[in-house]
Amino acid sequence: MEKMKRAERMVAITQVLMLKPNVLTPLALFAEQFRTAKSTISEDLMAVKGSLQLSGHGHLETIPGAAGGVRYIPEISREEATAVLNSLAERLNDKERILAGGFIYMTDLLFNPSILRPLGLIFAGAFRQKKPDVVVTIETKGIPLALVTAEALGVPMVVIRSGNKVTEGSSVSINYVSGSSRRIQTMSLSRRALEARQRVLIIDDFMKAGGTALGIKSLMEEFQADVVGIGILVEAQITSEPKLVEGYLSLLQLKELNPDSGKTTVVPVFL
Amino acid sequence: MEKMKRAERMVAITQVLMLKPNVLTPLALFAEQFRTAKSTISEDLMAVKGSLQLSGHGHLETIPGAAGGVRYIPEISREEATAVLNSLAERLNDKERILAGGFIYMTDLLFNPSILRPLGLIFAGAFRQKKPDVVVTIETKGIPLALVTAEALGVPMVVIRSGNKVTEGSSVSINYVSGSSRRIQTMSLSRRALEARQRVLIIDDFMKAGGTALGIKSLMEEFQADVVGIGILVEAQITSEPKLVEGYLSLLQLKELNPDSGKTTVVPVFL
Repeated sequence: MEKMKRAERMVAITQVLMLKPNVLTPLALFAEQFRTAKSTISEDLMAVKGSLQLSGHGHLETIPGAAGGVRYIPEISREEATAVLNSLAERLNDKERILAGGFIYMTDLLFNPSILRPLGLIFAGAFRQKKPDVVVTIETKGIPLALVTAEALGVPMVVIRSGNKVTEGSSVSINYVSGSSRRIQTMSLSRRALEARQRVLIIDDFMKAGGTALGIKSLMEEFQADVVGIGILVEAQITSEPKLVEGYLSLLQLKELNPDSGKTTVVPVFL
Repeated sequence: MEKMKRAERMVAITQVLMLKPNVLTPLALFAEQFRTAKSTISEDLMAVKGSLQLSGHGHLETIPGAAGGVRYIPEISREEATAVLNSLAERLNDKERILAGGFIYMTDLLFNPSILRPLGLIFAGAFRQKKPDVVVTIETKGIPLALVTAEALGVPMVVIRSGNKVTEGSSVSINYVSGSSRRIQTMSLSRRALEARQRVLIIDDFMKAGGTALGIKSLMEEFQADVVGIGILVEAQITSEPKLVEGYLSLLQLKELNPDSGKTTVVPVFL
């Protein structure tokens, strides 16, 4: 490869760091790749850092020392987060989305990467300082949301199975009462899915009474895990009945859902 | 914002484009954001394009004209793809991963964003020219793989539910025979999940006899969808029995799995 100019190196460095968010890259690796001195790379990085600083989309973090390096921390600005949640609330308020049983059709949004990505960044921004080791969710619809949050935080994801279908060696199952259906259900997690004493962030797409979240918390106790946060995309706040769990963060609140009039009211609560 | 220098703008442009892969951004938008002439942005983009060209991690595509703009197409180089698949095969060959019934424990890998991301790029690279409108998978373990593939292609994902639990308006269900268990099972998809005549890419984590893939193909026919490709992460090739579907692409082949000796042989087949 021909030797690059500073501006070209800065672009290439930005690309490499953004491709592996949260991963520490040693300066020596760039120096070798671009066949230039570490001091030159250091200056390149200062310039990249300055350029990214104002964007609100993510910044560079430099760790000094022999084991140090640089990493890209993805972020979302407050303005963009607000715009994303407002737009999502508006889409959810479309009366075509009303389903039987007090639910809203959200699947198309929950499975769309371009909608998920900023939501993951919002959750990651809210919980990064809690230093979770892993993001935990329960199948099925919350999986993509949990995945983008895990990626934005740079940690793996663990998916609890509903029912007893784990075929992955020994597993732990618990029964829980789904607050909305009042039925007893089972959730299971393979023993090998989660090490003991992990710091866990629970992410789910919807909370009605909070029975599922409470069930996940109980299951996490079986793994001696420390639940450091609960993030919910849409929380139903139609009745004044208190939730079965406390201290969660919801991004949107469903205030009203009237199948007869076709009126849904979802509002952003975060920020 | 103070007026930026060229190198700074180049970094900022790279970041904005990488944050929205496959999305066309008009040059006017950059010109406004950086308070500079479109001709200047045009020169910036040429320089960014040149700098990214050699990396193999993705390139810029410029569309001329009034409705034109520029977009970032994410890619993975052949070298990196080979390294990723070799490393994954090696991890899968660990005898601790052998599960009862001729399966390998893959869940930790399938739910890890840093492992998934390059796999999504490999599938996207293999199927981009087929121009899929949507990536389809069946719950549960293939969901993250389908999501990263969909994001790399810039299209949404659709998840087929196993069993009959779709509560999202009218749905289409089919019965299929899972080739490995020889049992009749059901899969369902909400009518509103997929428009008619979409070009569909099927992605799944594992194929044994191909019964599930055949089932998905039948279900897709009900939606008048055009299946333009099938991508499988691990294909079991232990017996010489032909698969129930043809024309799929698998990235890894499981050649041998012996619970007694603890020997597993997974090899990369792609590239």
